Amino acid sequence: MNLSTITEHLEGFEETIVFKFIDRAQYKMNSIVYEHGKSGFDGAGNKSLFELRLRRQERMDAQFGRFCVPEERPFTKHLPKPRRKVDLPDTGLFCKDFNVVNLTGDVLKAYQELLPRLCVKGADGNFGSSVEHDVYALQAISRRVHYGALYIAECKYRSNPDIYRTIIEAGDTDALLSLLTRKDVEEAIIARVRKKVASAQARINDRVRNFIDPDSMVRFYRDRIIPLTKKGEVTYLLNRKK
Amino acid sequence: MNLSTITEHLEGFEETIVFKFIDRAQYKMNSIVYEHGKSGFDGAGNKSLFELRLRRQERMDAQFGRFCVPEERPFTKHLPKPRRKVDLPDTGLFCKDFNVVNLTGDVLKAYQELLPRLCVKGADGNFGSSVEHDVYALQAISRRVHYGALYIAECKYRSNPDIYRTIIEAGDTDALLSLLTRKDVEEAIIARVRKKVASAQARINDRVRNFIDPDSMVRFYRDRIIPLTKKGEVTYLLNRKK
Repeated sequence: MNLSTITEHLEGFEETIVFKFIDRAQYKMNSIVYEHGKSGFDGAGNKSLFELRLRRQERMDAQFGRFCVPEERPFTKHLPKPRRKVDLPDTGLFCKDFNVVNLTGDVLKAYQELLPRLCVKGADGNFGSSVEHDVYALQAISRRVHYGALYIAECKYRSNPDIYRTIIEAGDTDALLSLLTRKDVEEAIIARVRKKVASAQARINDRVRNFIDPDSMVRFYRDRIIPLTKKGEVTYLLNRKK
Repeated sequence: MNLSTITEHLEGFEETIVFKFIDRAQYKMNSIVYEHGKSGFDGAGNKSLFELRLRRQERMDAQFGRFCVPEERPFTKHLPKPRRKVDLPDTGLFCKDFNVVNLTGDVLKAYQELLPRLCVKGADGNFGSSVEHDVYALQAISRRVHYGALYIAECKYRSNPDIYRTIIEAGDTDALLSLLTRKDVEEAIIARVRKKVASAQARINDRVRNFIDPDSMVRFYRDRIIPLTKKGEVTYLLNRKK
């Protein structure tokens, strides 16, 4: 439980997020995949193609044990039990149920708001590919947010348990948020992400691939990923098992 | 059916392949996931964790209609039927069954040989993530190989039908391969891939992520992806429906 190791781990997630977004953006918006009752999927009722894909992916992933991992929180409910034993080292976290911190609803909302800024308007018929890549992008964001929420919070708590304990007992969310915030670190993350978005696309042929705007990704990191991570940190600390 | 559009489309697949490989390489080799009978998966018999994941991913994908698309050829057999109607524009291809060209066995073998050059030796416990990323990487390679095999071959045939017809009727595989080969184009692809591998990793922190060697990727493109694509082109042409 070492802050520099944890922040480096978070840094490693950035490539995955950037890569997934670039890959989703090669397809047009294809809005019909988010419309209820228009999945064209046999026996799917009113669900959208996106909802179906997310649900089925998570059903498969649950059986493979994905959600045994603290930072992998599911977007959907009533998932099957794991069919393999996942041996986790001691996480060092203090919470009875990792789902105490589950920000997937916020992650989904943030992603859906971002999407029209990543993708070209209209439809290109790649409906299956669009929802496939949506799911991968969502999982990448979610992993980053929850990993940060759980481990950064625990690590910071340990570095100053007396102060944190006092604020937690007072239930002072604002004071917690302020104590957890390091503006200089946030600025460094944002600057790094901007460079990663640019370099990952440096050799793209924009006649076949839609270039994603580094500014959109930077805003998404600054206004969504980082604040959601901190929201999760606060939730974790307020629910930390004594 | 225009050669420059098709080759640009192939170019667009390169980012996906490079991204998937970089993402797989963040995990160690984790060889146990390829060993039979060691999946730890309840009721999985002798299958490896990798085989299970590939099979289940393809079962899900089949229901979403992935394999209705010519360039998406399955690695596994006896898959369920699509549960949604996939509206494809006229492909312009002349073959009764897209699986006439199915090089997934070769793709799998080539990938498994490459893997020890991408990943650090040993195990890090990320078994589920390793096989998840293996499947995505395999799908990306397969899409590129089959797209090239089908569309490049058809396009070249149309550009010179008399010559191709004569060689096809003679069943002269060597002459076909030679006619399909453009060394200058291959060299340009390889040079571009080398640059993409480097720029996609330009901002990687190598304390948390394993950097993949551009030379390994270049060799994989030159010695595997390009020859397999041409093998598929030959197969397509020899089986082209008159």
